[in-house]
Amino acid sequence: MQGLMQDAPLTLSSLLDHAARFHGDREIVSKSAEATLRTNYRDVNGRARQLAGALRRLEVKTGDCVASLAMNTSRHIELYYGVTGAGAVLNTVNPKLFPEQIKFIVSHAENTYVFFDPAFGPLLEALALELTGVRGYVCLADAAGTPAFNLPNLTNYEDLIGSEDVASPWTEVAESAGAILCYTSGTTGDPKGVLYSHRSLVLHAFTVLSADGMALSTRDGVLLVTPLFHVNAWGIPFAAAMCGARLILPGAALDGESIFNLMRAERCTFSLGVPTVWLGFLDFIAAHRERLDLSGLALERVLVGGSAAPRSLIERFDYMLGVYVIHAWGMTETSPLATIGTPLPEHAQLDAQSRYDIQMLQGRAIYGVDLRIVDGEGTVLAHDGIAAGDLQVRGPWVVQRYFKAPAPACDADGWFPTGDVAKIHPNGYLQLTDRSKDIIKSGGEWISSVDLENAAIAHPDVREAAVIGVPHPKWQERPILLVVAAPAATPQRDDILAFLAARVARWQVPDDVIVVPALPHTATGKLLKSALRETYRDHLSKDDGES
Amino acid sequence: MQGLMQDAPLTLSSLLDHAARFHGDREIVSKSAEATLRTNYRDVNGRARQLAGALRRLEVKTGDCVASLAMNTSRHIELYYGVTGAGAVLNTVNPKLFPEQIKFIVSHAENTYVFFDPAFGPLLEALALELTGVRGYVCLADAAGTPAFNLPNLTNYEDLIGSEDVASPWTEVAESAGAILCYTSGTTGDPKGVLYSHRSLVLHAFTVLSADGMALSTRDGVLLVTPLFHVNAWGIPFAAAMCGARLILPGAALDGESIFNLMRAERCTFSLGVPTVWLGFLDFIAAHRERLDLSGLALERVLVGGSAAPRSLIERFDYMLGVYVIHAWGMTETSPLATIGTPLPEHAQLDAQSRYDIQMLQGRAIYGVDLRIVDGEGTVLAHDGIAAGDLQVRGPWVVQRYFKAPAPACDADGWFPTGDVAKIHPNGYLQLTDRSKDIIKSGGEWISSVDLENAAIAHPDVREAAVIGVPHPKWQERPILLVVAAPAATPQRDDILAFLAARVARWQVPDDVIVVPALPHTATGKLLKSALRETYRDHLSKDDGES
Repeated sequence: MQGLMQDAPLTLSSLLDHAARFHGDREIVSKSAEATLRTNYRDVNGRARQLAGALRRLEVKTGDCVASLAMNTSRHIELYYGVTGAGAVLNTVNPKLFPEQIKFIVSHAENTYVFFDPAFGPLLEALALELTGVRGYVCLADAAGTPAFNLPNLTNYEDLIGSEDVASPWTEVAESAGAILCYTSGTTGDPKGVLYSHRSLVLHAFTVLSADGMALSTRDGVLLVTPLFHVNAWGIPFAAAMCGARLILPGAALDGESIFNLMRAERCTFSLGVPTVWLGFLDFIAAHRERLDLSGLALERVLVGGSAAPRSLIERFDYMLGVYVIHAWGMTETSPLATIGTPLPEHAQLDAQSRYDIQMLQGRAIYGVDLRIVDGEGTVLAHDGIAAGDLQVRGPWVVQRYFKAPAPACDADGWFPTGDVAKIHPNGYLQLTDRSKDIIKSGGEWISSVDLENAAIAHPDVREAAVIGVPHPKWQERPILLVVAAPAATPQRDDILAFLAARVARWQVPDDVIVVPALPHTATGKLLKSALRETYRDHLSKDDGES
Repeated sequence: MQGLMQDAPLTLSSLLDHAARFHGDREIVSKSAEATLRTNYRDVNGRARQLAGALRRLEVKTGDCVASLAMNTSRHIELYYGVTGAGAVLNTVNPKLFPEQIKFIVSHAENTYVFFDPAFGPLLEALALELTGVRGYVCLADAAGTPAFNLPNLTNYEDLIGSEDVASPWTEVAESAGAILCYTSGTTGDPKGVLYSHRSLVLHAFTVLSADGMALSTRDGVLLVTPLFHVNAWGIPFAAAMCGARLILPGAALDGESIFNLMRAERCTFSLGVPTVWLGFLDFIAAHRERLDLSGLALERVLVGGSAAPRSLIERFDYMLGVYVIHAWGMTETSPLATIGTPLPEHAQLDAQSRYDIQMLQGRAIYGVDLRIVDGEGTVLAHDGIAAGDLQVRGPWVVQRYFKAPAPACDADGWFPTGDVAKIHPNGYLQLTDRSKDIIKSGGEWISSVDLENAAIAHPDVREAAVIGVPHPKWQERPILLVVAAPAATPQRDDILAFLAARVARWQVPDDVIVVPALPHTATGKLLKSALRETYRDHLSKDDGES
């Protein structure tokens, strides 16, 4: 027997329509080097509808892909809604990828048009000859702001949409239709596409709004540092419209001073970004504490994801600013929110250090993403905080199949192997111990590179740390530690080894410490360990001593 | 092009499974006159699975209806999940309805089994002969707690489920399947059934969790005063499982002292109920303030819905306890949450009186329930806070068609006429001005009975007020006011009329004031104005003076 409630589809356009109808004046602020652009949900709705009309005029059909290469601006938000509101799929391409990867993605998705920030014109000029499927290029600017790039069918965004009606209808789509296509920037192999549906994105947005999620509300001003091309920027473009939150887009200036000033000027209450940005932010405040008026800061909480938050970050946000760091974990394949570190009731009475211990974990299970860990034979392991196994997830915003892939990405019950090794605590908290491929296998024992990195980062002379396993003639693999020095510090090999020896089992202590000026990262800020393993492959084959 | 995320259905069983897996120890506390029963989500999950197995054993099929006549207990929560987890529909029947209405509902829904609290055995004995479709009765008790009622195929709940496996599987259902069937207790005509789907209830639960909704979280202890048979008790049984909130069920003792003691003993942070309960609660605290330890009260917020919250209630909760009253509005046809009075950012700076003004409104639009007002010709009116019109709503948890009804309840665009007259403010706040049928039409002008009642209730001698329109020889209809005296007060007709004359337009002042010992209410606590109109039909035909 069917229920008798309304069959109203969960589409992205319904989110923006709600925002325009009931939070029409709520601002979306785009900061750039030149100016601060202020618009609001009503106007963004009108312009997204104009864009939908323009795309239909260009004969972009339901299900066609349209690419964006763009930073965080209100025009990019308009693409999120205008492209999907025309029934098409927005392929958010990370402009920081290698050109070969961008070429692969734009071609693989069969993008019909490419919308791009003027800054990425030269990049596209170098690729355009090979992007034979692309019918035209749209520069995200007005005529005056669009240089004469050597790109076929080049137009500018304002001219493209200007002639359309702000009341152009949305193209009707089923909630199961594809909406956003995002490619994983893995460290090996070709990028793989994850095709989010309208439904999966709306359900994910509900979770962003939930009190145990990010508790996003209309009372928030959200400083969105996380790029819009990075897994829907944690779903904020959708969740903010769903609740009518103010959106503040910081442009390219992500140094500590710029972030601080923007945050204060716009009374931001919540922000999202990777640890690197927050280290700069806190360092700036620490260095200029005496002249800064911290009372003007409305910041309440910060979400850190994309890579693990160092403990010092959690601690400094707390004691310097009284700001709560919400540690979250997710992947391109999980939309991305999978676990989130909002407190349980029993945490209310904890002292600060014990609370930081909890905040260091990757967050806890929330409705919509089921978690389990399995051993090498697929046997399900206990959630006891002791057993570590391959982490699997499933749920309505977890990938079923990669774009154009012949086979599902998950098993018949929906379990998707994340490639991470984790423990699950009895209270649902997730503790990542490693990427499967980053586990160091030393003489039959597993050594967690993450544990060692966390131990090393606690040393005052160390700003950043990477541990890799390299081939060893006796132990198959042994860990070595690469460190970047803290400001004005000169890390000493033996000092750091002694420091670690006091903190980890003896057989886990790395065989060597190498001080490097910088560590390589992927375009999304993750440590590029494959490159390190390549560079240091022979580091321990030179000697054959005991470790 | 279809999205490629997992096709995981939004079913009620997925909520309870999440709670059992990740919040298994979180308590569900049932208070009764005899005892306090403590269970938790893990055990409720096991018992609901046992019930699902037992229902399949009884050959209850997917889509069959099963009735409950029960108060708020953990067994009733088990019915919510066990019946729907067997693929059947739970028909929550209000045991306070007139027996004729109960007979109508149980028959109309074609209930196969009736689960009932022992207290309602005699009621069912009187009806059973006519309930020919019912195959059996299950008393919500163990063998010792089940009297030998004269009911066919009587068994007790514990024996029924005891032999089943706590790991019995859920019956697989589509998310569009019917789950809960609730009848409106209208003041005229036969009750009408609203059949919620798994999907509509899960989406509604997401909204209960949202920061702009009830912000329900795992850190809450929820005192659920609202009956489980009253429109899913605002969706709390589902939302609490979704986030792992503690649930406290108060049993039959709803007097101020019992509520206060339970709230303090169980450290409740959030509660939901009708104004009557809260008046008793606040009166108790006011009368015993000196001996009560208010510091032990963890209460943060109270949701008032079902009937309008008097301003004094909002004020007293604030200044006596620092508790925020969230005023919400909804109907059986809206699951029920339709609008909710969480603050907008611009309200942060308001003084208390201005904030109370906002809190007096019925709340504001939230994503999922779209609102509009139309005039008598169906023309859409502005959201300007001035125009009043017939309120219409639509969305994924709004009724499409009543159970077994031949025609839809909404128009082709999904707009459902609520029967209320309302204004919508530019910021999305809803202000109900009247039920369509309670509007008083006096000489071509409309008079709001709600406005008059709110004005009258502000008089210190008045505890409760009802305004009805009665036939008038000259003006077609004129308002009369019925009041119940405040404790130890003796309301005077002329004094109250003078009080009103200072607050409303002269032509709106009622023609008479009648002090009555009590006002009639429906089983769900709403004023039964149809009965009042009947009683006082000739009250003004006796005189023919000017008003």
